[in-house]
Amino acid sequence: MIENSAYHPAVAAGRNQTITRRISADGSPELQRTYRIAARTGSAVRLCQGQQLTIVNPTGHQVCDFWAFCASNLSEYLSMSHTHTALTSLFPKTGDTLVTNARRAMLYFAEDTSPGRHDTVVAACDIYRYRQLGVQDYHDNCTDNLRMSMSAIGLTISAVPSPFNLWMHIPITGDGGLSWEAPVSQPGDRVRFTALTDCIAVMSACPQDMTPVNGVGCRSADLHFRVEPGPGE
Amino acid sequence: MIENSAYHPAVAAGRNQTITRRISADGSPELQRTYRIAARTGSAVRLCQGQQLTIVNPTGHQVCDFWAFCASNLSEYLSMSHTHTALTSLFPKTGDTLVTNARRAMLYFAEDTSPGRHDTVVAACDIYRYRQLGVQDYHDNCTDNLRMSMSAIGLTISAVPSPFNLWMHIPITGDGGLSWEAPVSQPGDRVRFTALTDCIAVMSACPQDMTPVNGVGCRSADLHFRVEPGPGE
Repeated sequence: MIENSAYHPAVAAGRNQTITRRISADGSPELQRTYRIAARTGSAVRLCQGQQLTIVNPTGHQVCDFWAFCASNLSEYLSMSHTHTALTSLFPKTGDTLVTNARRAMLYFAEDTSPGRHDTVVAACDIYRYRQLGVQDYHDNCTDNLRMSMSAIGLTISAVPSPFNLWMHIPITGDGGLSWEAPVSQPGDRVRFTALTDCIAVMSACPQDMTPVNGVGCRSADLHFRVEPGPGE
Repeated sequence: MIENSAYHPAVAAGRNQTITRRISADGSPELQRTYRIAARTGSAVRLCQGQQLTIVNPTGHQVCDFWAFCASNLSEYLSMSHTHTALTSLFPKTGDTLVTNARRAMLYFAEDTSPGRHDTVVAACDIYRYRQLGVQDYHDNCTDNLRMSMSAIGLTISAVPSPFNLWMHIPITGDGGLSWEAPVSQPGDRVRFTALTDCIAVMSACPQDMTPVNGVGCRSADLHFRVEPGPGE
């Protein structure tokens, strides 16, 4: 049973393997190595300016909640609401530049083999969401996976930004109505971002198994990622 | 000229009358008194559970950037991305309950005399936005008005939440495209919220005078607000 305690942006309501499965002490990756993010967990990776992060969706039906924080200042982070203004769109696509809450260019959306249905308006799942869905005990959730991914490499966040929900298929009607649908991506689909500033990216293999957002089977699956060197590396 | 300095959620890039025009030392209002928010400035007001906040748009063309923070924990605040999930909509309407980042009911949307075109996806304007629009010196902005409104009553925010932009008319096309249009509200239009928990509401009379978001005349105008007692007060 989860206690009702005061909200704290950095404190997870429970724990899972995210906290012990960091890729390195400070999140720096081995370049060109493929890392696995186990279903229902998260992972943080440091990117230097110019490096490229590829995230792969092996089953095609797995949502990846995604965040990025400036390495020099964790209060500056990828912001969906600022990105909406920069793109005059709710749906980032290849060729777009995603920006921070200080409207700085952070990531270039270099490649997307999927149909480009990603969500930018819905909060990450959290313990409160699962309580509302009837779960009494702890349930893995993307917000806690973010917190644990960062604390696993020694970092503490000051806020939980709204995520970029890769492959999360939330169609928007002309009057602003939302619905939660199964992803339209295919097995092996991938997205690739180029870091435009030194940053820490965090990915969570969304553990939502009570709605079809991770596919009609409601089963969370693994994700993979790798980092490729920047020019001259 | 604004210096490039590290982003800090609570630190304004400049100042205006917001910092000296608090309604009281701790933001508590005189009930049923009409307060004026001067064009281009902001104001914070404390609401006790059950009290009602009415915001009036005298000219009809003025956008009000709006935030709310839990009185007992400023890290818990009105969250547009969590509200999207709660409402399965991008457009809150009368009868809806707006929620925090802990998915707690915070405000009941009790009345809206306007056609209900309010924005929930676009960030508040900030000094970076005006730099991009070509402004070299300080320009009043909603993000700094939020910071100053809170610091004027002795409070420090730990993050700048995405605002609820009252009367801001950002139509959304079926493919997620956004455009910045003049408000469709009329002079004297008002919205009314019932506080479902003790909170601090912050309003900014948006100083955007470089796009028609505050009307085709691109002029910022005053807003008014008042607080009515809760049941039994």
